[in-house]
Amino acid sequence: MASMATYFIKTPSPSPSFPKKFNTHFSPALTLSIPLGSKPRTRQRLRISNALIEPDGGKLVELFVEESKKGEKKREAASLPRVKLSRIDLQWVHVISEGWSSPLRGFMRESEFLQTLHFNSLRLDDGSVVNMSVPIVLAIDDAQKRLIGESTRVALVDSDNNLIAILKDIEIYKHHKEERIARTWGTTAPGLPYVDQAITNAGNWLIGGDLEVIEPIKYHDGLDRFRLSPAELREEFTRRNADAVFAFQLRNPVHNGHALLMTDTRRRLLEMGYKNPILLLHPLGGYTKADDVPLSWRMKQHEKVLEDGVLDPETTVVSIFPSPMHYAGPTEVQWHAKARINAGANFYIVGRDPAGMGHPIENRDLYDADHGKKVLSMAPGLERLNILPFKVAAYDKSQGKMAFFDPSRQQDFLFISGTKMRTLARNKENPPEGFMCPNGWKVLVDYYDSLVPADNSKVPEAVPV
Amino acid sequence: MASMATYFIKTPSPSPSFPKKFNTHFSPALTLSIPLGSKPRTRQRLRISNALIEPDGGKLVELFVEESKKGEKKREAASLPRVKLSRIDLQWVHVISEGWSSPLRGFMRESEFLQTLHFNSLRLDDGSVVNMSVPIVLAIDDAQKRLIGESTRVALVDSDNNLIAILKDIEIYKHHKEERIARTWGTTAPGLPYVDQAITNAGNWLIGGDLEVIEPIKYHDGLDRFRLSPAELREEFTRRNADAVFAFQLRNPVHNGHALLMTDTRRRLLEMGYKNPILLLHPLGGYTKADDVPLSWRMKQHEKVLEDGVLDPETTVVSIFPSPMHYAGPTEVQWHAKARINAGANFYIVGRDPAGMGHPIENRDLYDADHGKKVLSMAPGLERLNILPFKVAAYDKSQGKMAFFDPSRQQDFLFISGTKMRTLARNKENPPEGFMCPNGWKVLVDYYDSLVPADNSKVPEAVPV
Repeated sequence: MASMATYFIKTPSPSPSFPKKFNTHFSPALTLSIPLGSKPRTRQRLRISNALIEPDGGKLVELFVEESKKGEKKREAASLPRVKLSRIDLQWVHVISEGWSSPLRGFMRESEFLQTLHFNSLRLDDGSVVNMSVPIVLAIDDAQKRLIGESTRVALVDSDNNLIAILKDIEIYKHHKEERIARTWGTTAPGLPYVDQAITNAGNWLIGGDLEVIEPIKYHDGLDRFRLSPAELREEFTRRNADAVFAFQLRNPVHNGHALLMTDTRRRLLEMGYKNPILLLHPLGGYTKADDVPLSWRMKQHEKVLEDGVLDPETTVVSIFPSPMHYAGPTEVQWHAKARINAGANFYIVGRDPAGMGHPIENRDLYDADHGKKVLSMAPGLERLNILPFKVAAYDKSQGKMAFFDPSRQQDFLFISGTKMRTLARNKENPPEGFMCPNGWKVLVDYYDSLVPADNSKVPEAVPV
Repeated sequence: MASMATYFIKTPSPSPSFPKKFNTHFSPALTLSIPLGSKPRTRQRLRISNALIEPDGGKLVELFVEESKKGEKKREAASLPRVKLSRIDLQWVHVISEGWSSPLRGFMRESEFLQTLHFNSLRLDDGSVVNMSVPIVLAIDDAQKRLIGESTRVALVDSDNNLIAILKDIEIYKHHKEERIARTWGTTAPGLPYVDQAITNAGNWLIGGDLEVIEPIKYHDGLDRFRLSPAELREEFTRRNADAVFAFQLRNPVHNGHALLMTDTRRRLLEMGYKNPILLLHPLGGYTKADDVPLSWRMKQHEKVLEDGVLDPETTVVSIFPSPMHYAGPTEVQWHAKARINAGANFYIVGRDPAGMGHPIENRDLYDADHGKKVLSMAPGLERLNILPFKVAAYDKSQGKMAFFDPSRQQDFLFISGTKMRTLARNKENPPEGFMCPNGWKVLVDYYDSLVPADNSKVPEAVPV
């Protein structure tokens, strides 16, 4: 991964050297339309300034204990009841502690949990509203609850009993799992990945409170330097004199359809008068389901996309978004957007069926493919964010490249499904030229190659395109 | 029912003669506390004035066709595709047409449906937010959709093909039933009454649009004169010089615990400086589940409660709320409150587990008993409404009357469950004196008497207290 660092920005003091832009697969004359800002939004006006968008609640929350107080906090924690964090719990501590969920200051108490489930938003003390669509909660079981007893604070530890944080002014309330699942996913069908992983077997209580985090969360997987916090990203955007930041959330390999979109978005922002729009290419780094391409492989693939010049490193910041994935469609896309406001993004690109997946037990998609962008465009607390919906990209045989789908010449387009892509990569075949940059494709081939078991019998399910 | 008219207000020009207040079962020195206004609400201040609270959206919606245009509309409707309304659909036309759901002007289009499901609120063109928690939608099936074809309007007819309304500027979109149910009820368990009645077998499409209603909806059941519209209720409150209107939603017989609460609320409002608080006793009149006491019997029971002087007719308006019942707990209680704002109520009394019921397949309540009032107190668009939560009332053996439960002397209290009440009424036994006024109780006994089948084998399920 050493070479990656030259293309990705580094932390704590980013000073990357980026290669000059290469020729890309895209025609410079391409004028496909994104309905950019075409939808009037109430209480919103595009203002061009170099000041980044304000975090939710007006101030970016960071919940780390000051260096001078660490000793004291560690001593205090030693005497507190302990709650052991799962890997996903730890990812949420990461998310909360860096302010992705500003103005949250810890795991949700019941009033926040209920507002999230029912309203996808929180009302603050000053009467203003911020978006909050996904419950960020910590479950404990009966035994842990008994252990906590009357204590008003607990120590949160990782699986090796290392102290992670103190949770203070705690509130313990019932974990109504069925209701949580139904209101978050719009279904209670068995087989929802996050539910299976983090809810079904979790405790029957939730514990909310304010976090005091001892050390920034690190994973020691060689990728920590790409995990920039919202504050670090804001610093980087400011350093680059960004006057617009457009975020692209992804949990899949980047193909040229994605790249087309990002390039075209930048072109449109320049047309609108922005001088220096910066792309935040922001792969999700927390829990993903077993058949998604793992983060480490995705990061290798993204690296190649920049190396091959498909995206311009001068105007692109690649960083890892530490959140776990819910696969909760229109509910989750709000979280994905809201968190990027906190990182300084004022434009958010949303595609078809964001955060969607197949229905776990019926032969259909879980969500209406249009609901994500519709819900996002109407969501309370996201009025300040410019939502950029985009059309479906497909392989245009007449041009030999990825292009936005044009229904008037349907016969020219080839949809390369996840299944198709997987089959190709597994068989070490190439997709049509122009679908993905060759070195990026090679990473995928290598990934699937690494998976094929000895008896050649089972390969994980499709990679969504 | 003739005598009832003397105790209930009449329409169109109410001029009731009320009996003077009788002695009640309540001690005048009773000082049980309701946390009236004790919870600070953001952006809300109690202002005492004789102007009624504004309807949502600023103007009460009424959707009736002017007399002079009826002929023209009827001729137009004759040429339109027809959609037949179920009984529940007709109740919703009633609700929408009179402005209970202001500012809705018809069945929801998709953007309203999605905002309702995800945010329990609608954002208006001016950026303001109104509460809207329950989808008010009209389902059609594939055949009806084909029949409508490219038409931009349809005629809505009742089961006898009588023209009810025209729905114009229609939008047809998918009826995602599972998601609707999950997000509205927080469960998809089989056996939810409204779901079984109105969703499971309904069509796979929803049709939204603006309503033009030919005639006010009437049911010809002897109770139409008690179905006052929001405009008529506002007129009545104004006529009575109400400076506060407190609404009590109910779908059950009134026992003395309820009455205690209403009486005590009025006392508190007077203490707060209001000169003439009026109670809107507002039984739900639309669809209810089979084991609820039917509307006609409830109205008889309410009549006796006023006749017996348990509530003061001088300061009480009894009217029927035409909405169907969802039994959707914290989601539905918002609808119940919001609709009463439109009718002029600025105080809303909310009890334990409002609009709740038992879980259809698990041995527990469907909702956390406290969630209704918590969710209501935080709901977007209800900031102007004063929420009055109340404690559980039970029979206090030490005083021989209903009183607010005091956990410090638990042994003094008798909880009379729905099952217990039913058993007593069915066996023509009396509850403890002071539980319900004797003539009200007799109505219940008569109701259950009317149900006992010849072979004495089956009686419908419990009446919730």
